[in-house]
Amino acid sequence: MGRGGVGIVTRKEVAELAGVSEATVSRVFNGVGPMKEETKQRVLQAAKTLNYHPNAIAQSFARRRSGNLGIVLPYVPKVHIFSTYYFSEVLSGIGEAVKQKGYDMLLMFRSPGEESDYSSLFRSQKVDACVILGATDSPGERSELKKLEAAGHPFCLVNQHFSGERFCEVDADHEEGSRKAVKHLVERGYRQIAFLNGSPQFSNSGDRLRGYKKAMHESGLLPAVAAGEVQVPGHLYYEGNYSRTSGYRAAAALKPHLDRVDAVFVANDRMATGLMQGLREVGIQVGRDLAIVGYDDSDTARVTDPPLTSVAVPFYEMGKLAAEKLLDRLAAPESAAEPCFQVRLKTELVVRQSCMTSK
Amino acid sequence: MGRGGVGIVTRKEVAELAGVSEATVSRVFNGVGPMKEETKQRVLQAAKTLNYHPNAIAQSFARRRSGNLGIVLPYVPKVHIFSTYYFSEVLSGIGEAVKQKGYDMLLMFRSPGEESDYSSLFRSQKVDACVILGATDSPGERSELKKLEAAGHPFCLVNQHFSGERFCEVDADHEEGSRKAVKHLVERGYRQIAFLNGSPQFSNSGDRLRGYKKAMHESGLLPAVAAGEVQVPGHLYYEGNYSRTSGYRAAAALKPHLDRVDAVFVANDRMATGLMQGLREVGIQVGRDLAIVGYDDSDTARVTDPPLTSVAVPFYEMGKLAAEKLLDRLAAPESAAEPCFQVRLKTELVVRQSCMTSK
Repeated sequence: MGRGGVGIVTRKEVAELAGVSEATVSRVFNGVGPMKEETKQRVLQAAKTLNYHPNAIAQSFARRRSGNLGIVLPYVPKVHIFSTYYFSEVLSGIGEAVKQKGYDMLLMFRSPGEESDYSSLFRSQKVDACVILGATDSPGERSELKKLEAAGHPFCLVNQHFSGERFCEVDADHEEGSRKAVKHLVERGYRQIAFLNGSPQFSNSGDRLRGYKKAMHESGLLPAVAAGEVQVPGHLYYEGNYSRTSGYRAAAALKPHLDRVDAVFVANDRMATGLMQGLREVGIQVGRDLAIVGYDDSDTARVTDPPLTSVAVPFYEMGKLAAEKLLDRLAAPESAAEPCFQVRLKTELVVRQSCMTSK
Repeated sequence: MGRGGVGIVTRKEVAELAGVSEATVSRVFNGVGPMKEETKQRVLQAAKTLNYHPNAIAQSFARRRSGNLGIVLPYVPKVHIFSTYYFSEVLSGIGEAVKQKGYDMLLMFRSPGEESDYSSLFRSQKVDACVILGATDSPGERSELKKLEAAGHPFCLVNQHFSGERFCEVDADHEEGSRKAVKHLVERGYRQIAFLNGSPQFSNSGDRLRGYKKAMHESGLLPAVAAGEVQVPGHLYYEGNYSRTSGYRAAAALKPHLDRVDAVFVANDRMATGLMQGLREVGIQVGRDLAIVGYDDSDTARVTDPPLTSVAVPFYEMGKLAAEKLLDRLAAPESAAEPCFQVRLKTELVVRQSCMTSK
């Protein structure tokens, strides 16, 4: 927890007891040198004796440090954002890192469409660095992030990348993760593999689609058309918004095509559980009549009936790494700081029973 | 998101353009009156023209407001705290309220055993009010909370109460919720009903135990001993720590007594899923061989096999209410503020298939 405090004891009293000037007391508490060790100790002893706490806000004003790592989160009314696997895991990882580094976490909710004036967060000194979650690739967002970068404010994106930019990013290899998921279905003998994707404005949705196409093409299941581009026929492509409800709705969209679909790769487990529920209601038994592979390897994947084969993404580690790298940059002298980092972590297929039957 | 910023434009320039004194500019931006509306508008127009942003930290220093609602969370290394249903729902509710009220959320992790110097949070002006989650009833905790109260710092406990104190609290009626759960099992014909409780240092664990005893006693299944106290025989009482693993372990503890137990009321769904897994591994089919009622009505309850009958707790509403009431107190003039609030929300039994078979 944050420390410091406004004492009733003043700097002047500390200076008098220690037999130094008020400026010396300030220099000790703001870590400004050079300073004889003996003088410093005398000031600290006097401060301790008097129970003196330099004012934390005044201090952070002088040092231009808030001790807070900012986290920008998308705000959607009524959506329980901390209850979604992705956000809860990333935040848990960030929490671990800030606790280790002695920082607090300042969460800021941004409404969709709300002007993302990220720079004001830094100007107002509420945060020393910022992790941005749930960013989407829009011209407005790019322009705001470029402004932040130009101003030298440390920030990092998690699970999102902006092609053509050199922003700090911690991402996962969703293209390869998706390729592995579809390849697994092919190895189990499935051929008519559909893809239920999430919202296209996230870079990771695009990554998953590329992985799906790659695997289907490599397996000879989808031909390349002009310029090597693989086209997906309509009955094999569905789109939700990563919510359970959108997965449930996809079951209805899929139903007329079930004679031409024997497996579905789903872009997250939440949609997969909705899809499974929807299919169950029309008499389709997942694992027997139709194979499903999910994505995220959330807690839910373990408890569905049948348990869901899924792609594990190290969200916790991604959050932890993003926070650690940002806070390390703050601690490092200007010259030694890594100007920018771009990390892509591996994903892993976890096989359970939702595509059990080898065909 | 937080607004404000250090502009290159000074207060002096705004004062000159508006034709007022610098003190008047300050009074406008700090909301200090009385002030002619026309003067105020002239200052605001001048500030807008010059793109003047009063320094947010200097401003909060003057107003003694940080614009942050503090949330104290327990820190347990490696535990993904945001992935637990209780914390994620309460935080989502708090998030909704702070967004509506224009505040940000400052999360602070406290290690178990770490001295809870809550007062320093306020002295350092990092927060204007504080929600404390996962508090336990220990003498040190009580003493820290009393200090906070004595200093007049607004704080609220969620899902925890301290008997004999008048702290602000938003809780749920776990005693009645537990009573309903056990009564339901009795109505379905179960008689040998065991209770798997969570960690006893939380007041809500004690509440659940009281509800269990009450229902068992009212149903004539457990006699009262001296002074009306109901004693629970060893083979009917088990204790975990609210984790899935502890529920899984309880299955082993329960196994030798299965001939004398036909139902288990479990203090949260997470332990219930662990217990179900453990029982499945020794050949017990929940819903057929043994009934289970969980608690929390988390997402998991819907997807277990069989789906879990559970007690719904309005955690989201509890978080939202705690934050709203605290922030309303901050906004209200001293005289109008409610000095203390103690709210207890209702719980609701949600019947699914885990105690399907009427005996």
